Amino acid sequence: MQTYEIQRQVEYYEADTTGKLSLPMILNWAVLASKNQSDDLGVGQDFHLERGLGWVILQYEVNILRRPKINENIKIQTCAAKYNPFFVRRPFLFLDKNDQEIIRVDSIWAMIDIENRKMARLPQDIIEKYQAEKVKKIPRIPNPAQIGHDEPFEENDYHVRFLDIDANKHVNNSKYFEWMQDVIAPDYLLTHEMTYINLKFENEVRLGHNIKSQVNLGDNYSKHRIMVGDVVSAEAEFEWRDNTAT
Amino acid sequence: MQTYEIQRQVEYYEADTTGKLSLPMILNWAVLASKNQSDDLGVGQDFHLERGLGWVILQYEVNILRRPKINENIKIQTCAAKYNPFFVRRPFLFLDKNDQEIIRVDSIWAMIDIENRKMARLPQDIIEKYQAEKVKKIPRIPNPAQIGHDEPFEENDYHVRFLDIDANKHVNNSKYFEWMQDVIAPDYLLTHEMTYINLKFENEVRLGHNIKSQVNLGDNYSKHRIMVGDVVSAEAEFEWRDNTAT
Repeated sequence: MQTYEIQRQVEYYEADTTGKLSLPMILNWAVLASKNQSDDLGVGQDFHLERGLGWVILQYEVNILRRPKINENIKIQTCAAKYNPFFVRRPFLFLDKNDQEIIRVDSIWAMIDIENRKMARLPQDIIEKYQAEKVKKIPRIPNPAQIGHDEPFEENDYHVRFLDIDANKHVNNSKYFEWMQDVIAPDYLLTHEMTYINLKFENEVRLGHNIKSQVNLGDNYSKHRIMVGDVVSAEAEFEWRDNTAT
Repeated sequence: MQTYEIQRQVEYYEADTTGKLSLPMILNWAVLASKNQSDDLGVGQDFHLERGLGWVILQYEVNILRRPKINENIKIQTCAAKYNPFFVRRPFLFLDKNDQEIIRVDSIWAMIDIENRKMARLPQDIIEKYQAEKVKKIPRIPNPAQIGHDEPFEENDYHVRFLDIDANKHVNNSKYFEWMQDVIAPDYLLTHEMTYINLKFENEVRLGHNIKSQVNLGDNYSKHRIMVGDVVSAEAEFEWRDNTAT
């Protein structure tokens, strides 16, 4: 199993108002680690784009013990742990300078045919570079709990902006986390720290789309949904810790 | 004159859909260079916050020859060039790996009393650390041209989000550039490259504010205004180059 490591320092513009690494940046750094590994193994974007294939992330699970502070140095380790003909499971460990694990991200990836946006079989010559373990069934991440039909929710409108689109011509994954976090009142965000996130992507949003970020907020627990019209684009559940109690 | 240099590599999440460093990131990197210089000189944020003082940027002027691409390595050089009792003028040079200048940022800074948000005299023991040249009058950056009373404009609404606020508890300066760029149609943004920006801050926007980003777009030239209700928050002019012609 090829493990790979990158090092990052938290800069002020990567932190939120608490002075700690923002939620979207956690995901950006995870994806950066996997991108750099793919580039290093010679199977980066140029390589698979030539065959009309692209990687997509289907689901994220994030466990946060603590978020690193501005100026803190962090290592992010990753590997393509397990694969079957269609899916890869890829964990990410965020370690502080004492090699203590502070964040763990798990993720399920697939490849799609860029043209028709349909799932594609993972090419053997690409996947074997990562020296991942071939398995029959990829261990699944449980589905996030859904906002029930009879449950109340609050919602905000967001517009997909020009800068939400990255060089892949798609909405940067981390933007979903921003929309999901932003719909919660600042008073709550400033007194609570997220400890767990499970987010599953369902349907792509595109430049110019108007989306609704919906939340049902309970006791240190929230359920989220991103809607484009009547279509569910993503669902998630978050767990929170009361900051003021510690 | 103390010059200072940082090095950065353009990561995928710092680029826009063109694969080049996004406009807000140009400003974030400039501010990072000056922040790191202040920290290194022992007059960083902790030092001036203790006296109830904070740096604010009043105006930016940006000349863009070309924006660096994903994976490109860039040096950013800065110094506090000139100061008088109230203002500092600070240039930033972005150099590529051949030491060619690709972006030049100029900026005017002042210190404010955090409590009453009023301008403060620059403390001698702080400013002397930068070994800047003391002058009577700071060379001014011309005011950006304004959208005239009789001129038409288009506008979009934006809401100040939780993640727009940085650890200084204020809207990150670079967000103004995002709002100003985003109001222009994607078709234009994808066929034109900005070459010059002059942005002047007038009144702070705050978390939860609804702002209007207004633009009068002419021939490779645009005038911008950020409004909070009837109050002008910032004004700017941009120059553009037609990408499709080259």
